[in-house]
Amino acid sequence: MNPSDVRSSFETDRERILAEWQELLSFPSISTEPNHHQDCLDCANWLKAHLEAIGFESRLLETPTKPVVFGEYKGPPDSPVVLFYGHYDVQPVDPLEEWESPPFTPTLVDGRMRARGAEDNKGQHFYALKAMQALIREKALNVTVKVVIEGEEESGSTGIAAMLPEWQDMMRADVLMVTDIFMESLDQPTITLGLRGIISLTVELMGPKHDLHSGVHGGVAPNPAAAMARLLTSLHDEHGAIAVDGYYDDVLPPTSKETKLAADVPFDGAAYEKLTGIAPVMGEPNLAPIERLAFRPSIDINGLHSGFDGPGSKTIIPAKAIAKITSRLAAGQDPERALGSIADHLHAHSPPGMQLTISEQCAAGAGFRLDPESDYVLKAAEVLNRMFGIDPVLRWEGASIPIIADLSRLSGAEPLLIGFGLEEDRIHAPNESFSLDQFRLGYEYVALMLSSM
Amino acid sequence: MNPSDVRSSFETDRERILAEWQELLSFPSISTEPNHHQDCLDCANWLKAHLEAIGFESRLLETPTKPVVFGEYKGPPDSPVVLFYGHYDVQPVDPLEEWESPPFTPTLVDGRMRARGAEDNKGQHFYALKAMQALIREKALNVTVKVVIEGEEESGSTGIAAMLPEWQDMMRADVLMVTDIFMESLDQPTITLGLRGIISLTVELMGPKHDLHSGVHGGVAPNPAAAMARLLTSLHDEHGAIAVDGYYDDVLPPTSKETKLAADVPFDGAAYEKLTGIAPVMGEPNLAPIERLAFRPSIDINGLHSGFDGPGSKTIIPAKAIAKITSRLAAGQDPERALGSIADHLHAHSPPGMQLTISEQCAAGAGFRLDPESDYVLKAAEVLNRMFGIDPVLRWEGASIPIIADLSRLSGAEPLLIGFGLEEDRIHAPNESFSLDQFRLGYEYVALMLSSM
Repeated sequence: MNPSDVRSSFETDRERILAEWQELLSFPSISTEPNHHQDCLDCANWLKAHLEAIGFESRLLETPTKPVVFGEYKGPPDSPVVLFYGHYDVQPVDPLEEWESPPFTPTLVDGRMRARGAEDNKGQHFYALKAMQALIREKALNVTVKVVIEGEEESGSTGIAAMLPEWQDMMRADVLMVTDIFMESLDQPTITLGLRGIISLTVELMGPKHDLHSGVHGGVAPNPAAAMARLLTSLHDEHGAIAVDGYYDDVLPPTSKETKLAADVPFDGAAYEKLTGIAPVMGEPNLAPIERLAFRPSIDINGLHSGFDGPGSKTIIPAKAIAKITSRLAAGQDPERALGSIADHLHAHSPPGMQLTISEQCAAGAGFRLDPESDYVLKAAEVLNRMFGIDPVLRWEGASIPIIADLSRLSGAEPLLIGFGLEEDRIHAPNESFSLDQFRLGYEYVALMLSSM
Repeated sequence: MNPSDVRSSFETDRERILAEWQELLSFPSISTEPNHHQDCLDCANWLKAHLEAIGFESRLLETPTKPVVFGEYKGPPDSPVVLFYGHYDVQPVDPLEEWESPPFTPTLVDGRMRARGAEDNKGQHFYALKAMQALIREKALNVTVKVVIEGEEESGSTGIAAMLPEWQDMMRADVLMVTDIFMESLDQPTITLGLRGIISLTVELMGPKHDLHSGVHGGVAPNPAAAMARLLTSLHDEHGAIAVDGYYDDVLPPTSKETKLAADVPFDGAAYEKLTGIAPVMGEPNLAPIERLAFRPSIDINGLHSGFDGPGSKTIIPAKAIAKITSRLAAGQDPERALGSIADHLHAHSPPGMQLTISEQCAAGAGFRLDPESDYVLKAAEVLNRMFGIDPVLRWEGASIPIIADLSRLSGAEPLLIGFGLEEDRIHAPNESFSLDQFRLGYEYVALMLSSM
C-alpha cells in the first residue's frame, strides 16, 4: 500500500478500530495480580479470536504460567518472515483514586484514549494488528507474519522464556518487529538501536541475633546498617563508575559509527534536571550521559532497608539490613556472568562477623545493539522519512525488554525497535493514555514497513 | 541500722511491702502513649501520697509535660544531702500476646514479680523508698534525703530537663543516688563508674523529584540510596573507628587508674558472641571492647530506609533515602558540639546533586565518669563488701541516662550508680520481672548506705 491508501484506509475504518481497541482495553489483564488471572486468559482468547477474524491462523501457546497468543499469516513462499512481538498484560492500577476515569473503562478525551494499557502495550500492538488487517484485506500483505503476544511482560516474561527453546522452529524469522518503544517527540521519528539487559538480586546482611541496645553495644557490636552501607558503597567508585572487578570486560565497545551517532543524539542537561529534579552527574566521568546509557552498564540500589523507621529515635543496632539491586547490562555482557561478578564482589567485600545472603537472583535478559546500517534499519529510515518528511534520529534505550535478546537469538531475526510512545502517555502511572495521532502513526508505519519488504 | 536489723525489718514488713509494690505496678504509666497520660498522673499522685505516708514532705513539681514527684526528709542541720533519682513511667507493653500474665496485673511467680516496670524502674526505686521508710521509722535516717521521681525517662526526660535550671536550689545535694542500674550477676556487686551521653539526629537525602526508571536513568541519575550509603560509610573508617573530624578531641582520656580497672573488668568475647550472635569486632582496633564502651564514643545507624521493600524487584532509582543516627558520647564531649561535628561532616560529605536535610537533632545528655576513689564510692564499696562478702567490681556503662549529667551538674551532687538489675529481668521486653532477692538486696544496700553516711 502507498501512504495515501494507508491513510484513507485508517480514516474509513476509524470508528470500528476505536471500538475494537476499547474492547481490548476493557480486559483488566494485570499479570502480577493472581485475582486477575482469568482476565488475562479472557484477553488472550479475545486476541486469538481477533487474529482469526482478520485473516491469521491463530492459537494459544500454553506455558507453565500464562498463554502466549500466536498468529501466523503465510505470505508467498520465500518471502521475508516477520516476527511481531507484543504483550497483552498491563501494569497494576494503584493508586486507583488518582484515575480521572476507571482504568478499564477506556475513555476518549481530547484525542487521547485513556485506559490502563492504552499505550503499554495494547495500543502499541493493536495498531500493528489493524495495519496488518488492512493489508490482508487489500491483498497487499506479501510477507509471512508471525504474531507473538505474551501475557507476562510486566512480570518477568516467565512463561515465554521457559518455552522459547521448544518453540524455536515456530519462531524462525528474518526480522523481529517490536513497537513497545518510545519516540523522541511526536514530530521526530526515532529508530532505537539497542536495549540494555537486566539482572536483579537481593542482598541481606544478618548481624546480631536480634536488635541490640545501641548504648550497651555501640562501638563493640558491628552494625548491619553501617556494614550494608559500606558493602554497597564498594560497588562504585566515587564518581559512580562500577568498581566490580571485570564488570566492563565483556562490554562491546561502540564502533566509530556508533560513537559518532551518539554525539548527534540531543541531550540537554538543564532540561534533564528540570524534568527529573536531579543533574545527570552519576557515572563514568569521561563519557557523555548518552554514551553511559547506550554503551555502558549501570548498577542501582532499588531498595535499602534496616532497622527503625518511625518518628523520633530508637536506640538500636539493627539485627539485619536488606538491599534490592538491579544492574542494566551493556551489549556483550552475559547476564549469568554479570550476576556472578556482583555476587563474587559482595562475598569478597562481606564485612567481618556478618552473614551475607544473596537471593532472588535473576539473570532476566541480555542487552544488545543493532547495526545502524542494516537493510531493515535503512528500510525503516526510508519509511519514516516518507511519513514525517525528516530523517529519524537513531538512539539507544537504557531500559530493557528482557525477552527480546532471547527471542532474537532463537528466532534468528534481527530486532527492529520502532514505536510511537511518548513520556506524556504516563505508562505504569495513573491516567495512562495514548493519542489517536500516535495510534495512526503506528498504523501507518507498520503498513508501510510491511509493504516495503 | 546494722545489717541484721535491716534484714529482719525487711522480713517483718515483707507482705506489706509486696502489696504496696503491686499497687504501684498496677498503674499503666506509659509515658510515650498519650492515652495513658491520666495513668501517669494517677501514679505520680499515688507516689506523692506514699512519700507523705512514710515520713516525707512531698509535692508534685509541674512541668510542661508530666509532673515530677518530689519528696524531702530533713535530716540534722549540716548532715549530708542525698538526692535520689527514679522514674515512675514505664515502657510500652507490645507485643501484648507474649505476656504470660497481664503486664499491669503484678504476678508473683517463682520468687519473681512479673509486671511492666517490675524492675525498670518501679522495682528499683520502690525498694529505696521502703528502706528509707524503715530508717525513718527506726529514727535512723540521719541525712537529708530529697527524692526525685520523674515521669518521662522512657520518652526523653523532656519535662524535668526543661525545668531543672529553675529547680536548682531545691535540688542541691552532695550525692546523687541512682539505682536504675545493672549489676554484674546476682552474687557479684557492681559499682558503675560512668555512663555515656547520647545525641540523635535524622538525615534525609532527596534526589530526583520522584522515583525514576532505573533503565532510562541508570548510570546517569545519582541514586539517593547509593549516595546515603556512601555518606554514612564516611562516618567511620574501615575498622569502625569514627572518622568525623575532631570527634575524639574532647574525649576525656582514662586515668592510669581507670585503664588498670578496665583491664580487670571481665570480658569474654566468645560468651559475648554466644549471647548476641555477633563477634565484638567493631570499633577502634587498638582498644579492648571494655575500653571502647567505657571511654570512647560510638556512632550507630539505628535505621536506614530507601525505595522498594517488597518481594521480587522494582526497577527504580528511589527519590530519597533516610537514616536515623544516634551517637553515644564519652565523658568530656559536649552534646551540642558533637551534634554540630556530625552535621558539619554530613554537609561536607554531602553527595553532588542531592539535597541534604538534618532534622530531629537532639543533644539529649552528656556522658560522665566518676572518681573510682571518691569518698562515696569507697563507702559504697565497703557497704557492698559487708553485704556480699566480696569486693564490688567497678565498671562503666555504655548506655545513657541522659538527665543524670544535668542533674548532677545543677545539684552539685556526685552521682553514685549502684543498682541490682540483671539481664534476665527483661526490661523493655514482654514478661519483665524482678526477683524478691534483687529487691531485698536493693533494700539492704540503700538502708546500709544511708546509715553509713
